[in-house]
This record gives sequence, structure tokens and C-alpha cells, in this order.
Amino acid sequence: MNCAQKEAIVTAPLPSSIEIVEVGPRDGLQNESTLLPTATKVELIERAIAAGARRIEAVSFVHPRLVPQMADAEAVMAAAPRRDDVSYSGLVLNRRGFDRALGTGLTEVNVVVVATDEFSERNQGVTTEEGLRTWEDIATRAHAAGVRAVATIAVAFGCPFEGPVSSDHVVELARRIAEAGPFELALADTIGAGVPTQVGELIGRIREKTGARLRCHFHNTRNTGYANAFAAAAAGVSTLDASVGGIGGCPFAPDATGNIATEDLEHLMAGMGVRTGLDLEELSRTGTWIGERLGKEVPALLGRAGPFPRQ
Amino acid sequence: MNCAQKEAIVTAPLPSSIEIVEVGPRDGLQNESTLLPTATKVELIERAIAAGARRIEAVSFVHPRLVPQMADAEAVMAAAPRRDDVSYSGLVLNRRGFDRALGTGLTEVNVVVVATDEFSERNQGVTTEEGLRTWEDIATRAHAAGVRAVATIAVAFGCPFEGPVSSDHVVELARRIAEAGPFELALADTIGAGVPTQVGELIGRIREKTGARLRCHFHNTRNTGYANAFAAAAAGVSTLDASVGGIGGCPFAPDATGNIATEDLEHLMAGMGVRTGLDLEELSRTGTWIGERLGKEVPALLGRAGPFPRQ
Repeated sequence: MNCAQKEAIVTAPLPSSIEIVEVGPRDGLQNESTLLPTATKVELIERAIAAGARRIEAVSFVHPRLVPQMADAEAVMAAAPRRDDVSYSGLVLNRRGFDRALGTGLTEVNVVVVATDEFSERNQGVTTEEGLRTWEDIATRAHAAGVRAVATIAVAFGCPFEGPVSSDHVVELARRIAEAGPFELALADTIGAGVPTQVGELIGRIREKTGARLRCHFHNTRNTGYANAFAAAAAGVSTLDASVGGIGGCPFAPDATGNIATEDLEHLMAGMGVRTGLDLEELSRTGTWIGERLGKEVPALLGRAGPFPRQ
Repeated sequence: MNCAQKEAIVTAPLPSSIEIVEVGPRDGLQNESTLLPTATKVELIERAIAAGARRIEAVSFVHPRLVPQMADAEAVMAAAPRRDDVSYSGLVLNRRGFDRALGTGLTEVNVVVVATDEFSERNQGVTTEEGLRTWEDIATRAHAAGVRAVATIAVAFGCPFEGPVSSDHVVELARRIAEAGPFELALADTIGAGVPTQVGELIGRIREKTGARLRCHFHNTRNTGYANAFAAAAAGVSTLDASVGGIGGCPFAPDATGNIATEDLEHLMAGMGVRTGLDLEELSRTGTWIGERLGKEVPALLGRAGPFPRQ
């Protein structure tokens, strides 16, 4: 057997448990064209909590013209149940978004730094370098305000405009982001471009350079999302994003699927003996329910195939 | 970090290339309820060859009452293009099927031994033990006739009736099958029940007990298929089954998806530097085409999302 240049990076024991951040209310809905009423968004959050979710990315504080689905972010946060054991996060792209997040009483924000200039310019009107400075500014303010600041590197595994993104570049960006002390550093495969060996390599290299707590965010655009999630867990990452039902999409591939689905990720992890604290049946029901609200069959497969073994 | 009882597969470099056996004409179509004319089946085979497929599981020799889609197996084999660089296989469950396969001039048969008694009884009317004897009988006849005999262990990762299937049992079954000298020993996750750690463990244990050349067959019923394929490749298995478009289904979960899709598997492997010899664009076109013939959107995602990077 000859060897390819890439090595399969699958290492040590898997973690005994992982934390799944429910991003359906934010990244899931944000990419859905069917606008939902505020009450449905709040019900989605309530159902996720009932299924065991304890970290929820609930809203984006972005311009309503750009992302109409998130126009009622303040109203959603005002109505979402507040519980000591549930933490919410809001995604922000700039200072204005951060101020809005603070105004809702959120104690965690997720700040996006885009790895490529072209995606960054199109997504948030700044270069990567400018995005990095925005992150530093928000991190400083968040620390002063006692708010957790998560940094997400978008298109960390590939860009729809610039194509492949070099690991060297992402590692250096991660190193600089880490200097401002993120609560967590998330690597996002925004367009489902990554593969498992790349995931393992990037995680290993970033871990060598920073002490940041790592989190991964995968889309299943090209059916690599669950393999990537497995590779991330095998590389020791114990916080993964997912959206119930696998709702969401990709603005750059109109017919493509979205985030990896929470229920399918739970099934994968549970099968490997990795606990998530989530209730598969409740998740599957919620996936089907939100699909009905959106008028589509969700990409999650557990709701269609049923659990294994059968309950 | 505490450790789960299961370990992630520790592995060596990935193979530089893998062989993908195109099973769409057999396992894909067999589970589709829309009956296709013989000419369309032959065209599917021709298109797979044009996309680079060199091993094709083309037909099943089973009773037409049980699998109406395969009733024209002889006609398909009579019309399929014969080329020195393309090998065809037919699936057989018993001696009658084997004789039919020989009658078409096939030089490879795939004999199914089912790991659990209940599935075996329902699928082919015999116990696992009786299935094993059938395999031994066919293997002997195949060797005498100069025909390659592949053995497939069905429901090796889980059974819809009996639930989890113990690795000990599958390893012992593999050991006994290997005594009759299979050309290849295939492990089939017939209902998409397996997870990557299980794949790695089973492959490692079977390799310790037998010298058989291993092959894996995954379904994506619960979105674990590509992670399992990655785990198998990482464990050194260099022959994987897939169906173009991901056509097929699961007779035990009517709404479930089928085999992993050839185009999505090619994308995953190519991204990791593993060659398959297949043409992604041609595969994607064929996936879309067969979906149109079957009147459904195929589960493969490459045709919807497009390749990455863009060509």
C-alpha cells in the first residue's frame, strides 16, 4: 500500500461526552427563506431546551435588510425562557451588533472573523485584517462587561470565492485571535468544503500555537459534515455546533443543505459511547416540527429512519 | 478529559488510492420501487463506466417475485458492454442464483451470508449457519469454475430485528467464511446502523484473524455512512461500495436513504488526497440522470452543491 501525502488524523480515545451547541435558531433559520413569526422561533428554543440543549445560539444581530429572518432578534431574546442552566449566544459582526446584544442582556456573543478577504468583504464589508481588529475591540469590551466572547473563523476550510484556504493562514489567524482571550475559538466550515484529514490537521496545529478552547462548526453541504465531526471529536474537540433537523442552507449554493443535524450528530456520538445530554426522540420530533413550519423536508435522517437500535 | 469506553481508531496513513465498486445497478435499483426498463439499467452501467467505474455490481440473481427490479438480470448482463478493463459481479443468495450467474458468463459472484438468524430467515429463508454452508458450497463451485467468489456479511453492524450485532459473532463468522477462500470479504452495514469506532474495531479484529482482503459496504440511512467510509479507509480498507446518486433505500425504513453516493464518496476521498479513478462531474451528471429516471431527487449532495473547489 502506497501512502497519500495526507495522514488520517484519528488519535486518542474519544471524549466521554461532548457539548452540542444548538445553532438552529440562528444559523439554521438565518439561511431559510421562509420567514417565521417570533413565537415560532421562541418555541424552537423551548423545544431545544426540552430536548436537553443547554447552549443555544439564538439570534444574529445583523442588519435586517441583509438577514430579514433575524430582524426580530431583540423580541426573540425578550421572550426566550431564562434559566440558570441554559446559556444563550448571539452572533455579531461589528460594534453595532455587539451593543444590540448587550442591550438584550445576553452574556455571550459570537464574533465572526472571516478567513478570506473576498468572503469577508461580501459578508461584512471589511477585510480579514479589519475583522480581526473588530474582534479585538469587541473582546476588550466584552471582557469589561463580563460577557463571554467567542470568536469564529468563518470559511476556515474553504471559501466559495477564493477556493482552498491554507492551513498556515488559518493557524496564524487563530494565533492572533487567541491573543485577545476568546472564551472559545470556533472553526467554521461555512460552505461544507472541509474533509476529515484537514479537520484533524488544523486542530492539531492550532492547539500547538494557542491554548484556546476549540469548537467546530460543520455544514453537511457535500456529505462530509458528520465525518468531519467525528474527526474533530477524535482530535479532542468537545464542543460541536449543530442545528435541529439540519435546517439552514448555504447562500452560495441555493439547493444545498445546511448545518449538520443535532439529532444525527447525537445518534453518531451516542453510538460511539460519547454522551451529549440530549434526547434523541425529542430532537427528532423537533426536527420534523420545524420542517413543517418551514414547509420542507429537513435533511436530518434520524426522523425518517428512526433510531438504532429501535427504542 | 475522561475517556469513553470506545477508542477512536488509531491509524496509519490513508491509502493513496481506493477502489470504489459501483453497486447502483444492483443494490441501488433493487431497493427502488420504480421499475426501470432493461435499456435504462444498461445505460446506467454504461454511464458508470464512462465515469471511470471498473468494478460494477450489476445485478442480483434472486427470485423475481421477491425483487421484481432484478427480474431481467440475464437481459441486463447480455446487453452490458464487455470490456477487458471492466469486471461485473452478480449477487447470489443460493445455488440457483449461482447457476444463473454462471449462465450469463459472469466471472464474479457476491454471496451473502447474513449475520443474524432472523434477518437471514426473512431475507433468504435459511439460518446463518445454513447460509454459511451455502457460501462454502458456492465457493467450492466457483473456484472449480474459475469464478471469483466474494462473501458479504450482511447486517454486520446491526440488524433491524435483532438490534446490535456483537463484534465477537461477526469476527467468528468472518473467520469461518475466510476458510473457504473468498476473493474478498465484504462487511455490509445493510441498514446504516454502524458507527466509525465500530468499523475500525471490526476491521482490526477481522484482520487479526484472517488474511482476507476486506471490502466495506455502507448505507447512509442515519448519516453515518461517510464517517464510516472514512474510518474504513483510515483502517486500511481500500475497496468501498457506493451507488451513483446514493440511490437505493432500506426495505425496513421506507423513507430512509440508501447506499453512500459514489460522487460524494469520490469528493470526500479526493479532498483527502486519495485517488479513486472516477470523474466527479460525470458521476454527478449520472446521479442526476438516474434520479430523473426514478422520479426522485437523489440523496447525493454533490450534484446539488457543486464541487469544491469549483472547476
